[in-house]
Amino acid sequence: MRLLVANANMTQAITDVCVAAAREVAMPGTEVFGATGTFGAQVIGSRSENALAQQAMLELAATHAPHCAAMVIAVSMDTGLGALRELLPIPVIGMTEAAALTACTVGANFAVVTFGTRHRSTYRELIDGYGLGARCVCVEAIDAGPNAALADPQAAVRALAGLSERAIAEHGAESIVMAGAVAAGWQRDLQALLPVPVLEGIRCATVMAESLVRLGLPKPTLGSYSAPGARVVHGVGPALARMFDPSTTG
Amino acid sequence: MRLLVANANMTQAITDVCVAAAREVAMPGTEVFGATGTFGAQVIGSRSENALAQQAMLELAATHAPHCAAMVIAVSMDTGLGALRELLPIPVIGMTEAAALTACTVGANFAVVTFGTRHRSTYRELIDGYGLGARCVCVEAIDAGPNAALADPQAAVRALAGLSERAIAEHGAESIVMAGAVAAGWQRDLQALLPVPVLEGIRCATVMAESLVRLGLPKPTLGSYSAPGARVVHGVGPALARMFDPSTTG
Amino acid sequence: MRLLVANANMTQAITDVCVAAAREVAMPGTEVFGATGTFGAQVIGSRSENALAQQAMLELAATHAPHCAAMVIAVSMDTGLGALRELLPIPVIGMTEAAALTACTVGANFAVVTFGTRHRSTYRELIDGYGLGARCVCVEAIDAGPNAALADPQAAVRALAGLSERAIAEHGAESIVMAGAVAAGWQRDLQALLPVPVLEGIRCATVMAESLVRLGLPKPTLGSYSAPGARVVHGVGPALARMFDPSTTG
Amino acid sequence: MRLLVANANMTQAITDVCVAAAREVAMPGTEVFGATGTFGAQVIGSRSENALAQQAMLELAATHAPHCAAMVIAVSMDTGLGALRELLPIPVIGMTEAAALTACTVGANFAVVTFGTRHRSTYRELIDGYGLGARCVCVEAIDAGPNAALADPQAAVRALAGLSERAIAEHGAESIVMAGAVAAGWQRDLQALLPVPVLEGIRCATVMAESLVRLGLPKPTLGSYSAPGARVVHGVGPALARMFDPSTTG
Amino acid sequence: MRLLVANANMTQAITDVCVAAAREVAMPGTEVFGATGTFGAQVIGSRSENALAQQAMLELAATHAPHCAAMVIAVSMDTGLGALRELLPIPVIGMTEAAALTACTVGANFAVVTFGTRHRSTYRELIDGYGLGARCVCVEAIDAGPNAALADPQAAVRALAGLSERAIAEHGAESIVMAGAVAAGWQRDLQALLPVPVLEGIRCATVMAESLVRLGLPKPTLGSYSAPGARVVHGVGPALARMFDPSTTG
Amino acid sequence: MRLLVANANMTQAITDVCVAAAREVAMPGTEVFGATGTFGAQVIGSRSENALAQQAMLELAATHAPHCAAMVIAVSMDTGLGALRELLPIPVIGMTEAAALTACTVGANFAVVTFGTRHRSTYRELIDGYGLGARCVCVEAIDAGPNAALADPQAAVRALAGLSERAIAEHGAESIVMAGAVAAGWQRDLQALLPVPVLEGIRCATVMAESLVRLGLPKPTLGSYSAPGARVVHGVGPALARMFDPSTTG
Repeated sequence: MRLLVANANMTQAITDVCVAAAREVAMPGTEVFGATGTFGAQVIGSRSENALAQQAMLELAATHAPHCAAMVIAVSMDTGLGALRELLPIPVIGMTEAAALTACTVGANFAVVTFGTRHRSTYRELIDGYGLGARCVCVEAIDAGPNAALADPQAAVRALAGLSERAIAEHGAESIVMAGAVAAGWQRDLQALLPVPVLEGIRCATVMAESLVRLGLPKPTLGSYSAPGARVVHGVGPALARMFDPSTTG
Repeated sequence: MRLLVANANMTQAITDVCVAAAREVAMPGTEVFGATGTFGAQVIGSRSENALAQQAMLELAATHAPHCAAMVIAVSMDTGLGALRELLPIPVIGMTEAAALTACTVGANFAVVTFGTRHRSTYRELIDGYGLGARCVCVEAIDAGPNAALADPQAAVRALAGLSERAIAEHGAESIVMAGAVAAGWQRDLQALLPVPVLEGIRCATVMAESLVRLGLPKPTLGSYSAPGARVVHGVGPALARMFDPSTTG
Repeated sequence: MRLLVANANMTQAITDVCVAAAREVAMPGTEVFGATGTFGAQVIGSRSENALAQQAMLELAATHAPHCAAMVIAVSMDTGLGALRELLPIPVIGMTEAAALTACTVGANFAVVTFGTRHRSTYRELIDGYGLGARCVCVEAIDAGPNAALADPQAAVRALAGLSERAIAEHGAESIVMAGAVAAGWQRDLQALLPVPVLEGIRCATVMAESLVRLGLPKPTLGSYSAPGARVVHGVGPALARMFDPSTTG
Repeated sequence: MRLLVANANMTQAITDVCVAAAREVAMPGTEVFGATGTFGAQVIGSRSENALAQQAMLELAATHAPHCAAMVIAVSMDTGLGALRELLPIPVIGMTEAAALTACTVGANFAVVTFGTRHRSTYRELIDGYGLGARCVCVEAIDAGPNAALADPQAAVRALAGLSERAIAEHGAESIVMAGAVAAGWQRDLQALLPVPVLEGIRCATVMAESLVRLGLPKPTLGSYSAPGARVVHGVGPALARMFDPSTTG
Repeated sequence: MRLLVANANMTQAITDVCVAAAREVAMPGTEVFGATGTFGAQVIGSRSENALAQQAMLELAATHAPHCAAMVIAVSMDTGLGALRELLPIPVIGMTEAAALTACTVGANFAVVTFGTRHRSTYRELIDGYGLGARCVCVEAIDAGPNAALADPQAAVRALAGLSERAIAEHGAESIVMAGAVAAGWQRDLQALLPVPVLEGIRCATVMAESLVRLGLPKPTLGSYSAPGARVVHGVGPALARMFDPSTTG
Repeated sequence: MRLLVANANMTQAITDVCVAAAREVAMPGTEVFGATGTFGAQVIGSRSENALAQQAMLELAATHAPHCAAMVIAVSMDTGLGALRELLPIPVIGMTEAAALTACTVGANFAVVTFGTRHRSTYRELIDGYGLGARCVCVEAIDAGPNAALADPQAAVRALAGLSERAIAEHGAESIVMAGAVAAGWQRDLQALLPVPVLEGIRCATVMAESLVRLGLPKPTLGSYSAPGARVVHGVGPALARMFDPSTTG
C-alpha cells in the first residue's frame, strides 16, 4: 500500500525525518510517500501557524491522497485531522493522536514531553480533545522551541529525558509520548535513557494507518466524519476544489 | 470603541445579520464593523470548510483588527479563536464560546441546538474543549443544514423550538445556546416560544468583548496566548505576513 | 443603570474597596451602590460564617435589589448565588464565578490564589461546582487569612505573586484568579508583578452584570432558577418576607 | 449514643417521619433525638428557602449537638453540611450524601428520583459536588412538589416507582436514591415495587453516623473542616455565638 | 510472527470464530494460534465467571505465550489484561480495548452494543476504566445473553442493528463497538446494515498487536506493568508457577 | 451477626491483623470470622497475583459466606468485589472502597498512601473505577513493598507519615486513606502523627458492612449485581460450584 506522510510546514528536513521514521516500522509492502507544505509556516510552532497550516494540509491531501491507501499527519498538533477524516475516503491518523492511543496499551498512563513551554496548554487541549485526559498525568516542555532543539539534538534529548524522569518520579508516568515532529529521529536515543516505553508519533501513526487499511472499515455516511457533499469553495488549488465539489472542472 | 465582527465565510448576508445583532446590544459608544471572508467557503457547514476558514479569519484579522479595540468571531465554530488570541493584542471572543459562558450565568446548565445533525459532534467537541462539558446537558440538531434553514426561517425557528422543548423536558435544560451564525436574527422569535433564556452568540460575544476592553487586562507575555514572536510565513496576504513578522515589508 | 454590590459580612471597609473596584470599570451610565451586611460574620473566613451569610445576603437583596438593574455578590465564596438567581428578577453575578468565567477568555487555563490554606478546598469546590474544574490547574493559598492580609497588604501582594509564579512555572497557569473580596484593591499591584492576566472578581462581575442587563434575557419560568412561587417563611425581615410571598403585608 | 436528627424547616411532621425512619435502623444503644427549625421555611422547596435554612440548621446544631455523639441532616439538600462539619467536633452526615454513598455499595450506579422538576438541577449539583457524578446515571423528578406529594402519598409512591422503572430501563440504573425528607416514610412501599435497592437518606445517614462514632476518628486540625477558631458573629442565638467564640458570655 | 488468541472460557466454538476473525485481517506473515480455557466458565457471561477466568487466562498465557510474539485476549471483558501486561514480556491487547481505541480513529465517538442487559454496567465500567468514557455516548444491550444470541445469530444481528440505529439517532453515535466474543463472526453482517463503522474486537486487537510488535517497544522496568519479580504462588500449573518465579523447577 | 473477613492470600498473619482491626470497631453483637486463602499468592503485591486471588476469594466466599451476614474483603485491591456482590445474597464491602467512601465524609478530599511505587497506578485505577477520582488528590507510595514494610513497621509508619504530610502540604489533602491490608494494625500509630483523619480499610469496611445489614436492602434482581442464574463452571471447589449452580451435587 502507499502511505502519505504529510507535513504541512515548509521544512523538507522535517518531512525527511518523518518519512524515515515511518519506513522503520512500515510493513514490507508499504510504500511511504512524503509531502511537504508549499505555503504557510516554515516551522509550526504556535497556534497561529497551525491555523495557517490547516489549508496547507488540505491542499497536500487533495494533491496526494487520491493515490494513497492511508494518510499520516506529520505535524504534532495533528493539523486538520477532523477535516481530513471528513473529506477523504481513506484512513487518516494524527501523529500525536497515534502516540497517545498507543501509550494506552503499554502503560497505565502517559506523560507528554515536548519543546517550548507555550505548548503545555496546546498539547493538554489536544489530548483532552481526544477524550484521553484521564490517561495523561502531565504535559511538560523544555524551554527551547523546535528550532533550538534542532540546533543541538543531543542537548534536546537529554533535556527531554530529564523531563521524563521527573514525570515518572513525581507523577508516576508509565509511558512517555514525545510530541514534536522534529523529534521523530530521536526516539531511539530517548528510549535508551528511560525505563518506560517512549512513543513517537510517526511510528505509531504509521502502523495504525496500516492497521486501519487492513481492517477495511467503510467510510461513514452519517455523522461528522461523513463526506460533506458538494460544497463551493474559493481560493483553493484545483485539486482541493475538486475534492470539495467533484463537478468542478479545472 | 470599534468592534470587529468577522465572518470568515463569503456570504455577506450572514455578516449583515451578525452586525445587526451586535448593534442591538452594543454600548452607545461602540462602533460595530463587519468583515466578510474573501476566499474559502460560501457557508461554513463542515469540518473541512472550517479548516479553510482558519486562514481566511486570520487574514480578516490582520486587515481589520489593527483599527479595532476587540474582535468577535462571527462563525459559530469559533474559527481560529486560539490563534487569534495568540496573534492579536486585543480581546477576541468566539460567538459560541460567549453564548456558552453566558449560559452558565442564567441557568444551572444549557442545551445547544443547531442545524445539521453532523454538527452534534462538532459542537460537543467545541463545548468540551472549553471545559464546559459538565454544564451542557445535550447537543441537538435539526435535520436541515444552514442553507435549508435560511430558505425557510420560520420553519427553522419552529424546529429549533421543538428541539429546545424536548431538551428541557427530557434533559432538564435550563437555558438554550442557539448555535449557527445564520440564526443571529432569530433570537427574539425563538425566545418568544421558550420558557428559558435563549443565548445567541453574537450578542453574547459583543457585550463580552466590550467587557474585556473595559477590564483593560494586559496581553500575556508567557503561555500559549502570548505573541509567537517573529515568524516567517508564506502564501499569506501582506497584512498577515506583517502581523507574523513586523519586520516584513510589503 | 443602578448596580448593587452586596457584601454580606459586616465590614464596611470591604464594601468600600469593592465599590471602588466596580466603579473603576463600570460604564458611564452605571451607578454603583454598595450594601453591607447588618448581622452575621465580621469577615467571612470559614464555611460556617458563609452559611450565616446566606440569610444576610438575601436580606440585603430584598432591601436593595428592587431598585437595581443587576446585583454583584461581593463575597468571594459567591454567597447565596443560586438562591438569589432564583429569587430575583434581575441578573446576579458572583465575584469568583465572574473571575473564573472571564479567565476562560484570556488564557488556556487559570490558577486560583487566595488567603488561608483552609480555603484551598472551598475554592476548588466552588470552581468545580461551576463545571470549570478542567480549566483550573491549581488552587493555592498563602498561610495568612484575610485579616492578616489586610494588616500588611504589600506583604500579601508579594506572597500572592510568589504563589502565582509557582503556579505558572509548575502548573503552566496562563491566568490568575485572585479570590478574596479584601483583595479587590490590589489587582493593579499584583498585575504589575505577573506576566499573565490577573482576574479580580468585583471588576469582572461588574462588567458581566452590565452585559447581562444589555442582553435583556428573560427570567426563566421553568427550572431551578425560576421564581419559587409564594412561600411562607418566618424570622426574616419584612422586605425578604414580601419577596418570598408578595401577599405578605408588613 | 445520642443521635441528633435535625430538620431545619418548621414542619414537625417531617421531623417525626425522619426520627421514625432513623429509629427503624439504629443500633439498640442509640437514642434518636429529633429537632425542628424554629424560623425560616415551612417546607424547604427551593434554593432560596434552603439558603435561609443554613442559619436555622446551625442554630439547631448549636443548641442540641453538644449533647449528641453525631448529627444527621434531615433535609434532603444536606443543608449546612460543610459548615457543620467545620464547626462541630462530632460526625455530621447529610441524608442525600449518605444515600448516594451507600448506593455506591449496592449497585454499579444509581438514579436519583425526587419531587418537583425544579430540583433536577439542584440534586445533580449536589451529587456532582460530592464527586459522585460518574455514578449517577440520571436525576428524575415527578411534577408535583413536596406538598402535593404529602397530600397523596400513594400517588407519589406510584409516580416515583414509574420514574424509577424508566431510569432502570433507559439508563440502566442499578439502585435508586429517593431524595426528599418527606419521603422517609415511604421507603418500604417504594422498595416493594422495584427490582433494585431503594436508598432512603435518613436510614442511610443514621447507620453511617453510628459507624463514624464507632470509628472514633479525630477532628481534623488542618484543612477546610478544621474548627475555624474564635470568630465574632452577630445576630445569632447565644448557643451559636458561643460555638463560634467560646469566650462569649451569654 | 505467531499471535496467541486466547479465550479463557471452555467453548472451543468461540475460540474458532475468534481465530477466523483474526486470520481475516492478519498480515501475511502472521500465524494465528488459538487457545481455549481448560477450566472455569463454559461461557463468560457474568462478573463472577469473569473472576474465575482470570486464572484460566494466566494459565493459557503461561503455556502458550512463550512461543508467541503477541497476545490477543479473546474475551470481551478483556479478562486479565493488566495482569498479563505485567507478567508477559510481549504485547497484550484486549479485544474490547482494541475496538474502543480503534473507534476513536474513525468517529467522533462510539456506542457499545452487546448481549444481556446486565452487561450495560460492566462494559461502561470497562470503557471508563480505559479513560475513554468521554468518547462513549452509550452502552446498549439486547435482552438476550450470549447463549440466546448464538442460538439465532440472524435475530441477534438484527437486534444489534436496531440498538445501533437508535444509538445513532438519539445519541449521535458515529461508530459502533460490538462487544462479545461470540459476535466475532457477525461483523460483516452488522456492518452491512449500518451507516457508520462497526468495530469488532478480535480484528481490531489483531492488527493492534501486530503493530506493537512492529514498534518494538521495550518492556517497562518501572511502574505497574513492569515484571513483578520472583513471587511464590501456589495452586497454579507448572508453567504459570515458572512465569511467576523462574527459579521454580517442575 | 457473623461477619466474614476474607483474605485471599495465603498469609495467616495478615488475616489475623485484619480480624483484630475489625473486632476493634465491630458492634457488640458482631462475631468477626477470618478466612485465609488456600492457594494463589503468598502476599498479593502485583496485578497478576491479584488476578490469581480472584478465584481464591470466590472459593473463600463459597465456603464461609453462607454462614455470615456480610463479608469484608481483606485485600486492599478489593479483589473480586463486583463478582462477590453478584454472586452472594449478602452485603460485600471492599476495604479500600470503604476507606475511600468514608473519607468522603470526614474531609473535602483524600490522599491514598501505600507501599510500593508500582501501586500508584493500580490504586488510582481502583479509586477512579469507584467514580471517586475527583475526591482523590493524589496517590503516593513508599518505595518499599508490603514485605519490607512488614519487616520494619515503625520505619514504614514514619515513611507513610512523611508521604501523608507532603500530600497535605502540596495537594491540600484533608484525609488519608492508608491502603494495604498489612497496615491494618498501624492505623493508631499513623493517626497519632497526622493532623487529619486516617482511614484504614478494614475498620471502615467492618462498620459499613454492619450498616448494610441493618439497612436490610434487598438483593437486586436486575442489573450487573443480580444473581447470574445457574451457570456451569469447572475446576472449582464443590462449594463454589454449588454457588454457581445450586443443582450441582457434590
